[in-house]
Amino acid sequence: MSQTIRESSSAEIDSAVSRAATVAHAWAASDAPTRSGFLRRLADGLEAERDQLVALANEETSLGPARLSGELDRTAFQLRAFADAVDAGEAFQVIDEPAVPGAPPAGHPHLLRVNIPLGPVAMFAASNFPFAFSVLGGDTASALAAGCPVVIKAHPAHPRLSRAVFAMASTVADATGVPQGVLEMVEGTSKEVGIHLVRHSAIAAVAFTGSLAGGTALQKEIQGRENPIPFFGELGSINPIVALPVAVREKGQELAKTLAASIALGCGQFCTSPGVLLTLQGEATDRFVQQLAQEMDAQAPHGMLTPGIRKAFDEGVARLVSHAAARRLTTGEQNAEKHPVPNLVEVDVQEFISHPELRHEIFGPSCIVIKAGSLHELQQALQAVGGTLTVTVWGAEADDRESHAVVRSAMHVAGRVLFAGVPTGVAVTRAQHHGGPWPASTAPQTTSVGLMAMHRFLRPVALQDPPAWLAARAGIPC
Amino acid sequence: MSQTIRESSSAEIDSAVSRAATVAHAWAASDAPTRSGFLRRLADGLEAERDQLVALANEETSLGPARLSGELDRTAFQLRAFADAVDAGEAFQVIDEPAVPGAPPAGHPHLLRVNIPLGPVAMFAASNFPFAFSVLGGDTASALAAGCPVVIKAHPAHPRLSRAVFAMASTVADATGVPQGVLEMVEGTSKEVGIHLVRHSAIAAVAFTGSLAGGTALQKEIQGRENPIPFFGELGSINPIVALPVAVREKGQELAKTLAASIALGCGQFCTSPGVLLTLQGEATDRFVQQLAQEMDAQAPHGMLTPGIRKAFDEGVARLVSHAAARRLTTGEQNAEKHPVPNLVEVDVQEFISHPELRHEIFGPSCIVIKAGSLHELQQALQAVGGTLTVTVWGAEADDRESHAVVRSAMHVAGRVLFAGVPTGVAVTRAQHHGGPWPASTAPQTTSVGLMAMHRFLRPVALQDPPAWLAARAGIPC
Repeated sequence: MSQTIRESSSAEIDSAVSRAATVAHAWAASDAPTRSGFLRRLADGLEAERDQLVALANEETSLGPARLSGELDRTAFQLRAFADAVDAGEAFQVIDEPAVPGAPPAGHPHLLRVNIPLGPVAMFAASNFPFAFSVLGGDTASALAAGCPVVIKAHPAHPRLSRAVFAMASTVADATGVPQGVLEMVEGTSKEVGIHLVRHSAIAAVAFTGSLAGGTALQKEIQGRENPIPFFGELGSINPIVALPVAVREKGQELAKTLAASIALGCGQFCTSPGVLLTLQGEATDRFVQQLAQEMDAQAPHGMLTPGIRKAFDEGVARLVSHAAARRLTTGEQNAEKHPVPNLVEVDVQEFISHPELRHEIFGPSCIVIKAGSLHELQQALQAVGGTLTVTVWGAEADDRESHAVVRSAMHVAGRVLFAGVPTGVAVTRAQHHGGPWPASTAPQTTSVGLMAMHRFLRPVALQDPPAWLAARAGIPC
Repeated sequence: MSQTIRESSSAEIDSAVSRAATVAHAWAASDAPTRSGFLRRLADGLEAERDQLVALANEETSLGPARLSGELDRTAFQLRAFADAVDAGEAFQVIDEPAVPGAPPAGHPHLLRVNIPLGPVAMFAASNFPFAFSVLGGDTASALAAGCPVVIKAHPAHPRLSRAVFAMASTVADATGVPQGVLEMVEGTSKEVGIHLVRHSAIAAVAFTGSLAGGTALQKEIQGRENPIPFFGELGSINPIVALPVAVREKGQELAKTLAASIALGCGQFCTSPGVLLTLQGEATDRFVQQLAQEMDAQAPHGMLTPGIRKAFDEGVARLVSHAAARRLTTGEQNAEKHPVPNLVEVDVQEFISHPELRHEIFGPSCIVIKAGSLHELQQALQAVGGTLTVTVWGAEADDRESHAVVRSAMHVAGRVLFAGVPTGVAVTRAQHHGGPWPASTAPQTTSVGLMAMHRFLRPVALQDPPAWLAARAGIPC
């Protein structure tokens, strides 16, 4: 097997999209058992090939077999969770409103609101979750569950794994009678592959997990189409941790340990990795921050996903530590020969608010500490973050003005607010919401993790006075 | 009262948005009775001032007292429907998922998914519905119901009516203790007013009903913000009518009458006005089209909303009738001195498919007839429409291949598919969907009419391990 990344030609991309478009109606009209059966067989396929797939993933990503095997479990769990949701009718929900006789506005005809799949989805795999946000990850699973074919853009950080998973999926499709076209894959490192894909007239929606720069460029291409289409992009997040005085006082040492481990987990290569710690000035806080710096110096993260990501991390850290407003708290020096060294700096709160560049995500184990002089200043700092996947609030258990104020500010900028634990780790459940205001998500009302992710790929249609045969289809398109 | 349109200065716009931002948290945290009470009092206020408001609206729009009084009824109905929805808990829906013990992926913490209001909404009123899509129209009602303050951009086609309705709303707000800022209004004819409004950092979402050109320009401004925000724009629609042979044969004469009246209704100034008739070649179709042309010649629509809209209509018709592919079927000539004359042209199906300019909306009483040679060709023409608020299908009652094929194509491009009657007239109900793929909507998964419109202005937040006091708020933000 070659390690070289192939570049799909425009003709190959066109063929892949064309096959997807050809089967789009059939897949949209497929029933629940067909879809859920395919999703479950894909989950089985991942588990059956666990050893080879995890070994291949580890060679390509450095993430380690334990984490990768766990991620495979999560990916299989996710496929089965969407299968269960399909069987429970999630994709076929209707609102059926009988006619009301009489003149409008009170009188109205029979209206039956159904949901139809958008059509072929272009799905951009992420580098940092080679299973869970890649070929058969959450975007693919939720789009298939919704009734949309998926054209995968494989991530060049793990090309051989992508091909192996896709080959398994193709075998499963053949065995279950799912036609070619329901799942397609293109590859490439050049921007042109992605651009050609999202500009194809038969692509109906785009799902993307990646950088702010990459996502912004894709969005521009999508807006430049003759008919712009929905773009579900997750573009970055700095995931503030708010440690209120009561939490710092009562369990500062434990929280310092927990937070340092979370910042260094997976070498900080999570979209939910904590990038800023917001505290209130005080002696307990000073102690807590000291402990955190020590704990971070004690972390020994593994290597990063790609040389490019490592280079970007080193440059980000160098920019941050040399920033006039930043004071370094950790002692380790970055060294290109070694694994990356976790980085903690303190920044004055007003500097953090007035310098947008200090709020840009550094992908990797790096975190900024803010010691605000007042609750109001802490809220201002949170507000300056703008949009983030998560905010974690430690110490808001009391039903008082301080808790209300912090929680209000946290909810204003985040898609998920945690009150215990750390944001790294995203449960795949119905109540999950993995999104948030720009740049956390380009579509902040949607989630890319959890069962509601399926609704990104469905669109309501109101059927007015539907004929009996159509009403009888119970939400399944004809 | 002056007829001159005022131009709000940048400072005035900033003040209006700033007042809205100041009260955003309080309105977001308001309970159901506060919101529904305000909405009902606004409905009462419209009805109490009916005579003066309808007279003013008629002076400014030429739409006639009967239609305008009916539209006021619809607007009041809409405000009360959202009030009922708020009281029923629509804005405060939660998904509460208890913790599941054990390791992930199956084990997970307590997750409570709530919905929070986005924040201050910029709302652009439309020219053609001076009540229902203006100051207190569906966008305002649904945003207020969701808990968002609204900054209205009044439409310059009815400035005095806008001021009168806003003055009534301000009086109601004062009387009910709703703070200034929950409802604000700015005015202007220049693009700068709208641009300044949507680029304001405190604006969290934009609702717009208007032209493709205007909407596209606004979208570009919104994408150019440091933090792009959701844009709910309804930009145009040509609303195909598919008349299948069985319908044409069995009730051609009646349908020709109905369709001509629908095309000329309100002088064709509806976003749901039929702009293209898709038929299959045949003698019955020829007769039907002849009857339609005669019926259209017999229509006498009232004047248009503004001289600018009239000019655009005349130019659109002139372009269409002089198009090499078009053959005129109506006999009346446009005359700038008179009210606009309904226009019907026939266009070859392949020409319609290959010339995008033939598929652009002409706002006013104009329609294109297509006689397709086959069902497949008819489907291709429908496909070429791309996105539309509605498709009406006459003659799909049989559960056969022909009906399935047409309905499938119709659902693919439309937000609403009708099987009886005409698309002009949009019921305000829960099952309604007024949207559709671009350019019908910039956000095809959302509706601007009906109760689900409220969800445009809410955003999910997952609360992980929420403290007891927060969980107890039952979805109301703190």
